[in-house]
Amino acid sequence: WLLPGSLSGASLAHRCHHRATAMLDVPFLPFCAFLGTLGLLCVAMVGTWCQHWRGGFSLDGSSRTFNWHPVLMVTGLVVLYGAAALVYRIPHTWSGPKLPWKVLHGSLALGAFVLTVLGLAAVFRFHNSQGTPNMYSLHSWMGLGTVLLFSCQWAAGFGAFLLPWAPSWLRALYKPIHVFFGSTILMLSVASCVSGINEKLFFSLKNGTMDYKLLPAEAVFANTLGLLILVFGVLVVGALARPSWKRPDSDSLDSRQ
Amino acid sequence: WLLPGSLSGASLAHRCHHRATAMLDVPFLPFCAFLGTLGLLCVAMVGTWCQHWRGGFSLDGSSRTFNWHPVLMVTGLVVLYGAAALVYRIPHTWSGPKLPWKVLHGSLALGAFVLTVLGLAAVFRFHNSQGTPNMYSLHSWMGLGTVLLFSCQWAAGFGAFLLPWAPSWLRALYKPIHVFFGSTILMLSVASCVSGINEKLFFSLKNGTMDYKLLPAEAVFANTLGLLILVFGVLVVGALARPSWKRPDSDSLDSRQ
Repeated sequence: WLLPGSLSGASLAHRCHHRATAMLDVPFLPFCAFLGTLGLLCVAMVGTWCQHWRGGFSLDGSSRTFNWHPVLMVTGLVVLYGAAALVYRIPHTWSGPKLPWKVLHGSLALGAFVLTVLGLAAVFRFHNSQGTPNMYSLHSWMGLGTVLLFSCQWAAGFGAFLLPWAPSWLRALYKPIHVFFGSTILMLSVASCVSGINEKLFFSLKNGTMDYKLLPAEAVFANTLGLLILVFGVLVVGALARPSWKRPDSDSLDSRQ
Repeated sequence: WLLPGSLSGASLAHRCHHRATAMLDVPFLPFCAFLGTLGLLCVAMVGTWCQHWRGGFSLDGSSRTFNWHPVLMVTGLVVLYGAAALVYRIPHTWSGPKLPWKVLHGSLALGAFVLTVLGLAAVFRFHNSQGTPNMYSLHSWMGLGTVLLFSCQWAAGFGAFLLPWAPSWLRALYKPIHVFFGSTILMLSVASCVSGINEKLFFSLKNGTMDYKLLPAEAVFANTLGLLILVFGVLVVGALARPSWKRPDSDSLDSRQ
């Protein structure tokens, strides 16, 4: 069956396969620049939504205190978290000492976590000062679950990879778990944001010509924000999963500094 | 620097690394049985929610017509879709003729798509017979976007992998795109379901002791359903991404039948 003709056909097909997959090889850094722009656009849009349509920001316990909640969650739990997750995909991190990159990864994640906790504080303060119960909607269950997972992820990552005394077998055991939950938490964050924007629009737009049903400008703007957050999340999770963007030795023992 | 002592230390670490990662090696089929149980539980719970608390099912354009929407979406766009996505992770599909598995994958996905379209028809019929506008909420934009992506995915998959005349370079080019959108569509489906359950509970539970804020039994039940759908989605996407569960030759040319 292995005639010369069929062999050279296979070899031709092999060349075509390589050329075809090479066409999909987007370089990482331009992709990151695009992703950074998209992330900043999401932050700008959530800020504009709250400032222009929802009355701006304050710390007085009114709905203007609530407005910090979407801004801090989108900025912290989606955009800054996404930046933290992608640190090890930068080719510069693949050689030389690893500790500075670990510190950068952990610091960005800590920054994301601090913004997230402030975002939670904003909604709890708003509910408490209005006499509204906390933690009843599916959005709140999913969102708080996401933040709890994130806190475990940060603490376990710090303990296993930044403190010097974790044994190598523990790092090797925990690393794929940390990577899996890294993407999972981002997916849950994005789902939480989208359900939160949807819920907030139903709360806010319910009178006359401003009813959500009639798609006023605010609804179109915030729906578009929700879709952009989804695109951002999908692109970050996709970038994390892309084999050619992983550190070549990412499965080796080299996780000890 | 490479003293015998350090070499044997490295070799010990290497053994530990292998033992550590072997501890995480869940076998695929028991995992699938668990996932199947979880999927059936989601279907049973969404059916129970609509039957027990939301008045059951009918085709008369009332809210009992709407009730088909969550049941068909969870069954089609999440559970059956998840089953279709996992077909190529079954080790039996890795040897022997590939066509029967392609037909199974395509048929399960087609079944999921048909249920999804019926689920859309249910909500459009409900809105039209109530005089409610369609397609204004973020949930509806995200959901319809997900279904449109799914229809493109199915048609492109059918054209590229089941029809005999797609050239091998096109299959090689399109395959990673198909795989990426396979996981992406499931993430979007899950986010759509969760925002839809959240929205439906705000619509339905707004009077007296049955207010969503007061967490009546229905709210706890449907919130739990939302969390289980999230867990199902995360586990399927995680299983799809797991390198050791992929067909060993999945990056080779062998996509032609």
